[in-house]
Amino acid sequence: LRNEWFQNIIGSIADRGRELLGLDTEATKQRGLAALCRQLLAGQGEASGIALSQEILRIYGLADAEDKLRFFQILEAEFGPDPDRMQAAMARYLESRSADDLITLNSTVESPRQELFRRLNMAPHGTAALVSLRADLLGVLRQYPALKAVDADLKHILSSWFNRGFLQLRSIDWRSPAHILEKLISYEAVHEIQGWDDLRRRLMKDRRCFAFFHPAMPDEPLIFIEVAFVRGLSGEVGSLLDPAAPELDPKQADTVIFYSINNTQKGLRGVSFGNFLIKQVATELTNEYPWIKVLSTLSPIPSFASAVGQWLDGNGRAPHAELFGEVLQHHGAALREIDAGNGGNDALSNKELLKALLATRAYVSTSALAALLADLALAYLSTPDANGKLPDPVATFHLSNGARLERLNSNADVSENGIAASYGMMANYRYDLKDLESNHEAFVSRGVVTMSDALAKKARQYGREK
Amino acid sequence: LRNEWFQNIIGSIADRGRELLGLDTEATKQRGLAALCRQLLAGQGEASGIALSQEILRIYGLADAEDKLRFFQILEAEFGPDPDRMQAAMARYLESRSADDLITLNSTVESPRQELFRRLNMAPHGTAALVSLRADLLGVLRQYPALKAVDADLKHILSSWFNRGFLQLRSIDWRSPAHILEKLISYEAVHEIQGWDDLRRRLMKDRRCFAFFHPAMPDEPLIFIEVAFVRGLSGEVGSLLDPAAPELDPKQADTVIFYSINNTQKGLRGVSFGNFLIKQVATELTNEYPWIKVLSTLSPIPSFASAVGQWLDGNGRAPHAELFGEVLQHHGAALREIDAGNGGNDALSNKELLKALLATRAYVSTSALAALLADLALAYLSTPDANGKLPDPVATFHLSNGARLERLNSNADVSENGIAASYGMMANYRYDLKDLESNHEAFVSRGVVTMSDALAKKARQYGREK
Amino acid sequence: LRNEWFQNIIGSIADRGRELLGLDTEATKQRGLAALCRQLLAGQGEASGIALSQEILRIYGLADAEDKLRFFQILEAEFGPDPDRMQAAMARYLESRSADDLITLNSTVESPRQELFRRLNMAPHGTAALVSLRADLLGVLRQYPALKAVDADLKHILSSWFNRGFLQLRSIDWRSPAHILEKLISYEAVHEIQGWDDLRRRLMKDRRCFAFFHPAMPDEPLIFIEVAFVRGLSGEVGSLLDPAAPELDPKQADTVIFYSINNTQKGLRGVSFGNFLIKQVATELTNEYPWIKVLSTLSPIPSFASAVGQWLDGNGRAPHAELFGEVLQHHGAALREIDAGNGGNDALSNKELLKALLATRAYVSTSALAALLADLALAYLSTPDANGKLPDPVATFHLSNGARLERLNSNADVSENGIAASYGMMANYRYDLKDLESNHEAFVSRGVVTMSDALAKKARQYGREK
Amino acid sequence: LRNEWFQNIIGSIADRGRELLGLDTEATKQRGLAALCRQLLAGQGEASGIALSQEILRIYGLADAEDKLRFFQILEAEFGPDPDRMQAAMARYLESRSADDLITLNSTVESPRQELFRRLNMAPHGTAALVSLRADLLGVLRQYPALKAVDADLKHILSSWFNRGFLQLRSIDWRSPAHILEKLISYEAVHEIQGWDDLRRRLMKDRRCFAFFHPAMPDEPLIFIEVAFVRGLSGEVGSLLDPAAPELDPKQADTVIFYSINNTQKGLRGVSFGNFLIKQVATELTNEYPWIKVLSTLSPIPSFASAVGQWLDGNGRAPHAELFGEVLQHHGAALREIDAGNGGNDALSNKELLKALLATRAYVSTSALAALLADLALAYLSTPDANGKLPDPVATFHLSNGARLERLNSNADVSENGIAASYGMMANYRYDLKDLESNHEAFVSRGVVTMSDALAKKARQYGREK
Repeated sequence: LRNEWFQNIIGSIADRGRELLGLDTEATKQRGLAALCRQLLAGQGEASGIALSQEILRIYGLADAEDKLRFFQILEAEFGPDPDRMQAAMARYLESRSADDLITLNSTVESPRQELFRRLNMAPHGTAALVSLRADLLGVLRQYPALKAVDADLKHILSSWFNRGFLQLRSIDWRSPAHILEKLISYEAVHEIQGWDDLRRRLMKDRRCFAFFHPAMPDEPLIFIEVAFVRGLSGEVGSLLDPAAPELDPKQADTVIFYSINNTQKGLRGVSFGNFLIKQVATELTNEYPWIKVLSTLSPIPSFASAVGQWLDGNGRAPHAELFGEVLQHHGAALREIDAGNGGNDALSNKELLKALLATRAYVSTSALAALLADLALAYLSTPDANGKLPDPVATFHLSNGARLERLNSNADVSENGIAASYGMMANYRYDLKDLESNHEAFVSRGVVTMSDALAKKARQYGREK
Repeated sequence: LRNEWFQNIIGSIADRGRELLGLDTEATKQRGLAALCRQLLAGQGEASGIALSQEILRIYGLADAEDKLRFFQILEAEFGPDPDRMQAAMARYLESRSADDLITLNSTVESPRQELFRRLNMAPHGTAALVSLRADLLGVLRQYPALKAVDADLKHILSSWFNRGFLQLRSIDWRSPAHILEKLISYEAVHEIQGWDDLRRRLMKDRRCFAFFHPAMPDEPLIFIEVAFVRGLSGEVGSLLDPAAPELDPKQADTVIFYSINNTQKGLRGVSFGNFLIKQVATELTNEYPWIKVLSTLSPIPSFASAVGQWLDGNGRAPHAELFGEVLQHHGAALREIDAGNGGNDALSNKELLKALLATRAYVSTSALAALLADLALAYLSTPDANGKLPDPVATFHLSNGARLERLNSNADVSENGIAASYGMMANYRYDLKDLESNHEAFVSRGVVTMSDALAKKARQYGREK
Repeated sequence: LRNEWFQNIIGSIADRGRELLGLDTEATKQRGLAALCRQLLAGQGEASGIALSQEILRIYGLADAEDKLRFFQILEAEFGPDPDRMQAAMARYLESRSADDLITLNSTVESPRQELFRRLNMAPHGTAALVSLRADLLGVLRQYPALKAVDADLKHILSSWFNRGFLQLRSIDWRSPAHILEKLISYEAVHEIQGWDDLRRRLMKDRRCFAFFHPAMPDEPLIFIEVAFVRGLSGEVGSLLDPAAPELDPKQADTVIFYSINNTQKGLRGVSFGNFLIKQVATELTNEYPWIKVLSTLSPIPSFASAVGQWLDGNGRAPHAELFGEVLQHHGAALREIDAGNGGNDALSNKELLKALLATRAYVSTSALAALLADLALAYLSTPDANGKLPDPVATFHLSNGARLERLNSNADVSENGIAASYGMMANYRYDLKDLESNHEAFVSRGVVTMSDALAKKARQYGREK
Repeated sequence: LRNEWFQNIIGSIADRGRELLGLDTEATKQRGLAALCRQLLAGQGEASGIALSQEILRIYGLADAEDKLRFFQILEAEFGPDPDRMQAAMARYLESRSADDLITLNSTVESPRQELFRRLNMAPHGTAALVSLRADLLGVLRQYPALKAVDADLKHILSSWFNRGFLQLRSIDWRSPAHILEKLISYEAVHEIQGWDDLRRRLMKDRRCFAFFHPAMPDEPLIFIEVAFVRGLSGEVGSLLDPAAPELDPKQADTVIFYSINNTQKGLRGVSFGNFLIKQVATELTNEYPWIKVLSTLSPIPSFASAVGQWLDGNGRAPHAELFGEVLQHHGAALREIDAGNGGNDALSNKELLKALLATRAYVSTSALAALLADLALAYLSTPDANGKLPDPVATFHLSNGARLERLNSNADVSENGIAASYGMMANYRYDLKDLESNHEAFVSRGVVTMSDALAKKARQYGREK
């Protein structure tokens, strides 16, 4: 309520400013965004500043893709730093090494569009508008790489504003305002929410949902995580998502599963706080439910099937080709046995055989094949490249956070998506608060993937454990 | 409450981090702040980052002035940009003019201490700690000008964080939390609050108080303004401050007086939002009390007596000496008449006579002398120098905001302070929302001081009105 | 949050009480509710009182209809006042006329079950449980009239607790908590809400929803009203309910339509506050949207078709038979004309003809027939019986509130329900704040139905206007 | 805020009602309260009802003591039940024993003033006004006992409204609104609060304050309790009240002392909830600070000195005379020894000697005398009369709650009040949650005072322990 009261005041000021400046949307559209931006940067007055900011963001909001692009290009061409002045300032500083000259150098190098973005933030809901503007900008960056300079400025400012110290953790439940809940439905991309009944199930007592908010965007969850209280480590996602699943008293649970985490704002790409959220939630849950023994994700392995596919298609340079071959060899006998059971075809190589079996989804019912897939996945998720990077972004995220690879689950997500992405396999990454920092350190500095004892033993079979 | 809940989680994370890092306050004191800062900048881990930030701010908080100074000097010497890398980046950019090289240049020119400050903000109450750190830094800046580079970096970040778009206006009244009210008492510097009874009077129905807060410092009013509902323009401050003054129904009032405005955070010097506050409050009051006709300040003229004194002491280069002389000549006859009434002393020049009369505070009871003082004050407040600057900071503030000089009041503040600062004179600056922008423009661009008709007529006598 | 904190404390006390009393649900079920009630009334201890109350309400909640009935019968037979003691106390008071004896008489006449109900209220959520218990009780009252004494006691207490001075008006919108909104969906009975999208439309800017809450049932709207901002008086309900209807800026509206009002708690029957709500909402809307000229309902006429049907079926004693006959006569020529257009059947009387036409829903497309129906409805709604009572409960409600009958609308609700209830007709009752009291007085004291000029003129044709 | 919004609506309705009814305060004063009350009871209209209620309470508020008395007398004489109708209703019921006749009897016996009070509650702040009206009424009850009938009706209604199920526990601290804190200062009667600094000390981390509120009086603490976290059972009140006392981290504490409990509303006399509060607070503290081992009061013994005084003055019928004598005899030798030390006076009896010593406050420095006093106090607090009643209301309160008498402390309150009331002695009553119910039962049903082992042993010396 307070916030609305305040937005009304700002709105009044903006309205008065519009009047004073004689702003008229049709006319200002003609003048163009760049002209308004120049006026905004030139002016000092408060009312006119707010009015101009609001007008610029309004016209921007009405603009089509072409106009927006043109605007970005003007931002790039006309609102950047002045090379001559930069050069002179640099020369002066290098000579004097004085504080004053360093300050001048700094302000000369900073693009005027940074100040422009800061002033635009005065408009009501300015922060959200700038985040949305950046989402547009990111969409054309690949095609117009010169705009990267504009993006860098905007990202710099948003990173400063969305400093972790300013984020607010909120618990979301069925008593939360509907306009917030509605956003969960529309933003959930990992495991889509099928309407309000599904949502209600996800907010019952054996589920929790947490989100980060920024004070300037109080109605927008920036990122949210959904967790479930269960007995024993969950190995398949169907029962977690079933709207008709029976409700478990959290007091009866021993495990918490993080089964979905979603970034909602494209315009904040690169301003990440997912790791911050997951650790805060882990800490909070540990404080509030001290009897819970295990905190773990149940995570997709998004590019696994594609990596295996590349390898099977004979791409010698496929990442992990050598490792995958080793695993295949290890399971060769089992594979032949499956084949024999199916009638057999000696003409096929092991790779061809595997390819054929995968195509029929035989792994759903054939445990030996599932075991082979699990070993491939283990190889895939636990073997960084020469630069210490893993090919899987989800694994990279959780392992960087300090989680450990706990278990690989066959037939864990048998939806079309799950099959297509990873032959239905999913991974558990376990968060053990006391080990997070050392695991993180080992992974980030030395490329070491920490695993459960069971997986480590498996990995040793292939000589991969570190 | 929510906030506390959240601070507890961050606190838990920090505690765990302390443990993991083996932080021990005595030991870290030995290692020194700079070493901890280097570790903070080097690291990536969340828990350790929060713990380190908290530790650094804790040790800083315990440090004495000497240690703080040493820390500032290390920030200056070791956490600045690298000149060689800057030079190289500049050269590369000037040659390529590419976005990538501009981005590199930007990040090379930016001091690493900026990133350090951003990371420190992760600690619980980090923002407040950084504001307080800057207050310390400002205190030694004059003596150690090299530290200006550190200050510029910190100010740059605070300006970004305290962007007006993030400030929250709140109305403060007798139903506000005591720990906030307590701060009004301690921060009020214009007209000191004499304890809780005085405060209660200032929050009754014919008074209002508004403040700006920042979401990261929810318990700290950054700036606050006190207003009074009255009938007719107030010309003296005593009745406004009288704790026993009868309460007026705001519906009976026709005028609102802004009688005190206070910045509370030294560490935000130069990150001003006073004009933003006063205009928002003016807008809010106009919306909420549409029958109010006049919004005006009752303001001190802090340096008036000192300027007159310099002139009377024969300092020919005193600002306004010529103007003051003209006013004195105009009132010469009246002055002689007063003198005659007092016995008279023909040997004294007009200046000497005025000086003598001022010393006896004769203006309190002698209206002709009060009129002379009012004309001197008018000259003082309405005559910018060659650069368009006024000597009085209060006048500069309100006139820049677009207020107009409305009236000069004799015997308006007869406290010792009031007498010493301005022979008891105070000024009304009137805020008329529809004129603010044009007045602001006239003053800022052309050095024109807008006045009420009455004052303008007076000023024309001396040929000063513009 | 605070409330939950508090409920937890009460819960702890109750738990401890259970332990102390050795309560065990199976065992207490055996002992029976009456025995527990006797213990509750006998005891004084706090913890045991809360625990007993909770236990009684828990066991009651688990009971089947038969057990509940038995419990009600015991309340009637064993927890009523003692006739002998009453008689003695009466005799004593009549003799002494002393205050003390009057007090004794009062407490002797009051049934012990009143104190029982008061004690049950100590249990967490006790108030809601008692309201729900009364709903059960009302369901068996017709069959077991002796229980009316129990109901009278419970209603007496609920009337005292739900005193209008304790009700809290809240505005409900799309930012309200989902668990409250969910209740609107389930409680709306006048115009059913078709899921969350329909609800969202009913909470957009050109709609408002207000409800009364009681502090002891903060999650339960007791009664709620839905209003729509429109241009011109609405004459049909379809466009108001259309989820795809375009949104109107309330600033463009001149009329507010109250299109649905719902009591939600059966257990509060007879403890009415509908009139209080509608007047508060009318007052609030008038304050907040001063440009709105007309506040009016669009209301069903639930029993109109049934009354007309009885009359057409030849029931001579049907209410309004004479009046309806008069209207029919007045429209006789028009009726014959319609019939002629349809081929005609001279053998039918006017009544038979009308009956036939109504059966074919001819009024939907035949304006002359619609006009006849409107006149019948006018007669029906504006003619009280000898006791000043109207047959239509909706008309009675709004006219008692002081609204006036403003307009009758043909084809206003062409849903099956609307056709069945009133041949699709609906009525507007207009709330004009300045006339409410005098209209109310005229209707309640003298049976005068206030109407718009247009309707009054019509009514005069039949000599019925008063 | 919401509440204010709502009060404004009610206010608007009342204003309109005033206008409609032509209410004019001068005129209504002339008509008198009784006439307005009759009009209120007769009417049905909402607006007029609220307006009349408000008017009646306004005029009542302006009335002097004489007018108020006259109003009470009219309430007694004219707004009571009708004896003839009561008698007839009773006769009918006794004959028929029907539910309907019982209901009629009930409504006939109930005084019309009960309905009047219920209607008055519709006025803004009506509940608080009625509570305050009852405070006035209680003030004249002794002199005008006939008014007891009016009081009984009002108390009956207030008891129903202030049902424990409706009370809300709130924790009050230094972040609470000033207008609530201000009330603590003015209401604290046990240990007066010496201004805001004293209050702030009482709300620091080693202190807590809890209060009950009623939803209809959200700004009025009805009763509040102050607690202190200490190490070891507190035996004197000075250190608890010292504003300069060092702050103890509650984590270091092992004991919580309830050192002050205050009822604030005279008008709720007899509608007690002190025991409810103290048990809820004890439960809450036990939940929140599980390491606390002891919860105890440090309580005054208000009438002890007076009882001892009566006995020493030779009043044979003084309660406890026999017991006191026995204690005196037991300490006779010690008394003589003290006397001998002081010079001695053999002529005095033991009683005379004791009286003289008490008058000189010798007990402050003489431990043997302090021991004698402690034994007298033990006798006084642990020996119920034939009806099982104790003479000390504080002991009665805590023992009824189920606390046990834990320790008696000499020189525990050496303020003038403390000396005058109990020669400086205070008592600890300990709340042990698991024993409360059985102790309560023992005390209430059998007059047994539960004590600590140490006190029980002492009591056995005098053969008094039960």
